[in-house]
Amino acid sequence: MNEIKPIKTPSVPAPDILRCAYMELVVTDLQKSREFYVDALGLVVTEEDENTIYLRSFEEFIHHNLVLRQGDQAAVAAFSFRVRSPEDLDKAVAYYQELGCDVRRNKDGFVNGIGDSVRVLDPLGFPYEFFYETTHVRRMCWDYDKQGAGALVRLDHFNQVFPDVVNGAKYLEDLGFKRTEDIQDDQGVTYAAWFVRKHTVHDTALTGGDGPRMHHVAFSTHEKHNILYICDKLGALRMSDQIERGPGRHGVSNAFYLYLRDPDGHRVEIYTQDYYTGDPDNPVVTWDVHDNQRRDWWGHAVVPSWYTDASTVLDLDGNPVPIIERQEPKEMEVTIGADGFSYTRKDDKPEGFKVGEQL
Amino acid sequence: MNEIKPIKTPSVPAPDILRCAYMELVVTDLQKSREFYVDALGLVVTEEDENTIYLRSFEEFIHHNLVLRQGDQAAVAAFSFRVRSPEDLDKAVAYYQELGCDVRRNKDGFVNGIGDSVRVLDPLGFPYEFFYETTHVRRMCWDYDKQGAGALVRLDHFNQVFPDVVNGAKYLEDLGFKRTEDIQDDQGVTYAAWFVRKHTVHDTALTGGDGPRMHHVAFSTHEKHNILYICDKLGALRMSDQIERGPGRHGVSNAFYLYLRDPDGHRVEIYTQDYYTGDPDNPVVTWDVHDNQRRDWWGHAVVPSWYTDASTVLDLDGNPVPIIERQEPKEMEVTIGADGFSYTRKDDKPEGFKVGEQL
Amino acid sequence: MNEIKPIKTPSVPAPDILRCAYMELVVTDLQKSREFYVDALGLVVTEEDENTIYLRSFEEFIHHNLVLRQGDQAAVAAFSFRVRSPEDLDKAVAYYQELGCDVRRNKDGFVNGIGDSVRVLDPLGFPYEFFYETTHVRRMCWDYDKQGAGALVRLDHFNQVFPDVVNGAKYLEDLGFKRTEDIQDDQGVTYAAWFVRKHTVHDTALTGGDGPRMHHVAFSTHEKHNILYICDKLGALRMSDQIERGPGRHGVSNAFYLYLRDPDGHRVEIYTQDYYTGDPDNPVVTWDVHDNQRRDWWGHAVVPSWYTDASTVLDLDGNPVPIIERQEPKEMEVTIGADGFSYTRKDDKPEGFKVGEQL
Amino acid sequence: MNEIKPIKTPSVPAPDILRCAYMELVVTDLQKSREFYVDALGLVVTEEDENTIYLRSFEEFIHHNLVLRQGDQAAVAAFSFRVRSPEDLDKAVAYYQELGCDVRRNKDGFVNGIGDSVRVLDPLGFPYEFFYETTHVRRMCWDYDKQGAGALVRLDHFNQVFPDVVNGAKYLEDLGFKRTEDIQDDQGVTYAAWFVRKHTVHDTALTGGDGPRMHHVAFSTHEKHNILYICDKLGALRMSDQIERGPGRHGVSNAFYLYLRDPDGHRVEIYTQDYYTGDPDNPVVTWDVHDNQRRDWWGHAVVPSWYTDASTVLDLDGNPVPIIERQEPKEMEVTIGADGFSYTRKDDKPEGFKVGEQL
Repeated sequence: MNEIKPIKTPSVPAPDILRCAYMELVVTDLQKSREFYVDALGLVVTEEDENTIYLRSFEEFIHHNLVLRQGDQAAVAAFSFRVRSPEDLDKAVAYYQELGCDVRRNKDGFVNGIGDSVRVLDPLGFPYEFFYETTHVRRMCWDYDKQGAGALVRLDHFNQVFPDVVNGAKYLEDLGFKRTEDIQDDQGVTYAAWFVRKHTVHDTALTGGDGPRMHHVAFSTHEKHNILYICDKLGALRMSDQIERGPGRHGVSNAFYLYLRDPDGHRVEIYTQDYYTGDPDNPVVTWDVHDNQRRDWWGHAVVPSWYTDASTVLDLDGNPVPIIERQEPKEMEVTIGADGFSYTRKDDKPEGFKVGEQL
Repeated sequence: MNEIKPIKTPSVPAPDILRCAYMELVVTDLQKSREFYVDALGLVVTEEDENTIYLRSFEEFIHHNLVLRQGDQAAVAAFSFRVRSPEDLDKAVAYYQELGCDVRRNKDGFVNGIGDSVRVLDPLGFPYEFFYETTHVRRMCWDYDKQGAGALVRLDHFNQVFPDVVNGAKYLEDLGFKRTEDIQDDQGVTYAAWFVRKHTVHDTALTGGDGPRMHHVAFSTHEKHNILYICDKLGALRMSDQIERGPGRHGVSNAFYLYLRDPDGHRVEIYTQDYYTGDPDNPVVTWDVHDNQRRDWWGHAVVPSWYTDASTVLDLDGNPVPIIERQEPKEMEVTIGADGFSYTRKDDKPEGFKVGEQL
Repeated sequence: MNEIKPIKTPSVPAPDILRCAYMELVVTDLQKSREFYVDALGLVVTEEDENTIYLRSFEEFIHHNLVLRQGDQAAVAAFSFRVRSPEDLDKAVAYYQELGCDVRRNKDGFVNGIGDSVRVLDPLGFPYEFFYETTHVRRMCWDYDKQGAGALVRLDHFNQVFPDVVNGAKYLEDLGFKRTEDIQDDQGVTYAAWFVRKHTVHDTALTGGDGPRMHHVAFSTHEKHNILYICDKLGALRMSDQIERGPGRHGVSNAFYLYLRDPDGHRVEIYTQDYYTGDPDNPVVTWDVHDNQRRDWWGHAVVPSWYTDASTVLDLDGNPVPIIERQEPKEMEVTIGADGFSYTRKDDKPEGFKVGEQL
Repeated sequence: MNEIKPIKTPSVPAPDILRCAYMELVVTDLQKSREFYVDALGLVVTEEDENTIYLRSFEEFIHHNLVLRQGDQAAVAAFSFRVRSPEDLDKAVAYYQELGCDVRRNKDGFVNGIGDSVRVLDPLGFPYEFFYETTHVRRMCWDYDKQGAGALVRLDHFNQVFPDVVNGAKYLEDLGFKRTEDIQDDQGVTYAAWFVRKHTVHDTALTGGDGPRMHHVAFSTHEKHNILYICDKLGALRMSDQIERGPGRHGVSNAFYLYLRDPDGHRVEIYTQDYYTGDPDNPVVTWDVHDNQRRDWWGHAVVPSWYTDASTVLDLDGNPVPIIERQEPKEMEVTIGADGFSYTRKDDKPEGFKVGEQL
């Protein structure tokens, strides 16, 4: 029933990935995107011109965490990871060449502020980038006069929609990612899984669904009230219709979250306070797909758009990557509606107050 | 189209009400209610016996803010207000006798910890109590070792469902309450209104709907994170299905809120941070019923149960007060579904992202 | 041993005071004061000209809570209280005339945005103002886009230094203020006392010391993190030397506090989360002057400048009011240093860790 | 002028250290220590007997982060680090044997819950431990019902007092630690330095002073209000004299902090919100020792006890390690008092408000 063939494990070593570093987004109205990311969310502008804006979070010292590039169709051009050393780029080239992927290297970087870089269309169909060289910029940790009440302090993670989580996971684990959590059912279906290189719960995740598509990019705040303030501010700006889901507490990751939609519909998560995962034997947490607290610890229903909507990803020539449909059961269908169910207490009948009233 | 006849203004002065003081709830399983209010929410037990539990908030110095009494049918036996002086009880008697109400006085109080009291079935059909005398108990402001992360520090307000908000409001304003906010449409229909004696946004409110019924009783925390913690704790206790709505930011009142349902379905709000209203010319804020940020500043849909469910109220003999149906348009119907609409920006078409996707 | 003669109780009724409303400060460099109050603290400018700036807090709907007026000598020109009705001004005139005070009335107000006003040099030597009429301005509760991370949302209270707290208290209590807390010793000396009209712990307080002088004016934030942010921001602006004391938790009032000094040395408190005091029998809390947690619940030493420094007050002609020295024991002297002592636990010997190490 | 000879760099590879993992403290009254660490601070008891208590933080999955062992003299028996694999213990043995240290290995662990371990008395005189094997215990991230308002969620770091920071740093850097920040003067003296393995600002630090001694062990909370609550609770328990310094914002690390003293005087820091340091080219931040915001961003004076007091460390036979006096200038002396100075703004004269008034 799996959608794709297993990805083979290359014979050469994988590049040593440090962390998710930046996403390159194609947006259809750069000025409207600037209003969202800079005026409303307060990301720091490292540099900008008429076609491109380079943004970073307040604690970042590399050139940027987000590139907004004007284009005709909203899409994701790159999921970019930083590697440990310049030599890891050679490893990346060899690794993906053995996998038969389209691999391109640019000594000057594909975007400003980034040096020698490798871009690949990976076996799952996502445009991945690897780089080490980057311009160091001011780390604005201490610039409290410039940080607003909702200051975004770090890029935390990416999230990718892909039909076959099991085979997708094998590829990511070969690449050196460590699984931290997943959602399964008792039939052996995996609905989503989370993967990390740095010491948080994830650098990226696979959400089961029609893909390859980009589910969201996530930035961190220090505290939960920073996230609440972002909502309050969006209300004051009469932009509350860009709040898609939350704020709430995740079951998975234990983090506090908020999902926004940018003017093109790209989903942005604001996230804070997951846990340390840096030990090699860090325990993997598996959630039951029918546990109504897995995605929202407070048991609130996930809005359907959160399951169905995601962003197109581009190949290295800038063309949309075709979508493969998920064949396995879909999380939304097995948890809500006539054919699904969710429980608050595993042994309770499913007719509890909330499930009966709200879904 | 109004459901009831206007309540006449008595010729005698109204009692001088200080504030909402306590609610007497009839619960069908005292032990389960104790688990909810004491073990989960952490209210302070002033005293208890096999049939009754007297609870207070941490900053309270009067005997209690909530009485849980074992009974056969879940209901509200009293909305109790404290008055400025013993003499105000005489005024209450005269005031409600002139209104033709059932008025009863008990020099020893109707419940423990409260002295000379007057109970009336008011012209709207609600059991109101007035008292001054009460046992002073320890104000536990400084007892941080006993306050949990979600400490409830004050009783904030009541909320009453009643079909005719205009005539109900006139009665409350005659009684000395000051209107602070309301929700109307451009046809002159009033959907809800808020009324105060102390210096917050309300001591009670009228929510338009089939009534008389009790919509909720609200307790305050100091900060928003206290409310988030209550949700987290309910998740840990696998009681998340008792979270009905929120947490969120109200438009009306500007407060941060959470609605819970107790084991009998009585609704409890947890509330923090409205604004000072103590000046006589405090500006009244009127919200458009179609403004999607009026009840949730972040534009999230109000769950239907919040509009439809409410608690029975009892007359002075303990019998349920019959329900009068609201004849005017209902807020839920005019705002969501096929016949309703809500906007984020008044001049936008109503097909925006959130309205189209979520409602 | 009392410094002043008892103030007689007038035969006429006192004006009905609603709350402390604004302070008029004379500052010696208006631009520097603007940088402090507007750029650093973020108060809202209602209006300004070359000599005067009118500022308010975010939840305020009257014209201002603070007037900064350029002058040669830093001082306080008025402690202004709002009264319940226009008629209360007539009462104020009669009340203070009977007390033999200098009383002046200005139908057009002494400052912009305020109508008919009465200013008096009260029996203690403080310039008190009373008014009802004022221009209503936008209440910016909901303007989260304009509120910074350290938003000041209300004027909370004044604090006045006066040598004779007992006689000063009698005057304030005659004027309708209710005592909420005080600091005494077991010899019957009162070191400080707190007085309220609105429903918080105080609208003003008397701090025993050489006076009449102004100890501080206090603004509220919603939460404690807002106060911490103000400190972080002052650090980022390299203005940390304007942080005099705190942040910390008061024993008295149970509020969270911070004391700043403006460019002229006027002391500003940032304050949040005291308790409700609106009942007539609200319990008075008396603290032992030797209790090391009375002024800082965490037991930190009060810096000497906090005890010794205060602002000059002006009479109605703009001349400094002469200072009367306190004859009774001074709080600083009885609590720290060779002749004083403080305890953490009443029955412990005073050689505990903190007292021995830090004072 | 350096106090010790440079430590040679071994020819064999260092063990791959993951993170600081636990500290073993000798305490003189186990019951009093239990009241402090368990009842007041709320650490989780993994196991205990009459002589020993094993404690962990809420997000931990290894057996413990703190061992309290009853003994005659308060001291530190081990600074324990977790390594990446069992094989790293062989590396640790070879590494420290080449350094000529006392090296002992115990296949069953020196304490409960830890397997094969190596303890050394390192070249600086500190008892360091390395281990990989440990019993996994419940990670209580999601157990919000058990987490108090001041929940300690992680062990964050150790801090060691040593006279010669330059030579001590070389040893730690050889061992694989990366420097993140330090405090220097313009004469080339280093007063303190911070070192990390995991992705925070430090796993350990060297504070210049008479040593080897243990300066503090630090636990993290999620948010700043958790730390404020700990202070409030200690006040309520009349234990405020165990609050030594803070809460405040560090300059170094940008974290929010609080320093407590346990019943034996061992110093415990409560800490939250430093920044990500996992990239190999993470910028090192050097602070001027005269910058008054380096240790407290709000410019508050460091209390002298914080500079002078520290805990004895034990050799592998349990005997106190002799103290070497620091020969270089001491931070306290160069920053406060007659011979020192601190500035808020580098080019200002040092007679500013705070420095003149408070130090």
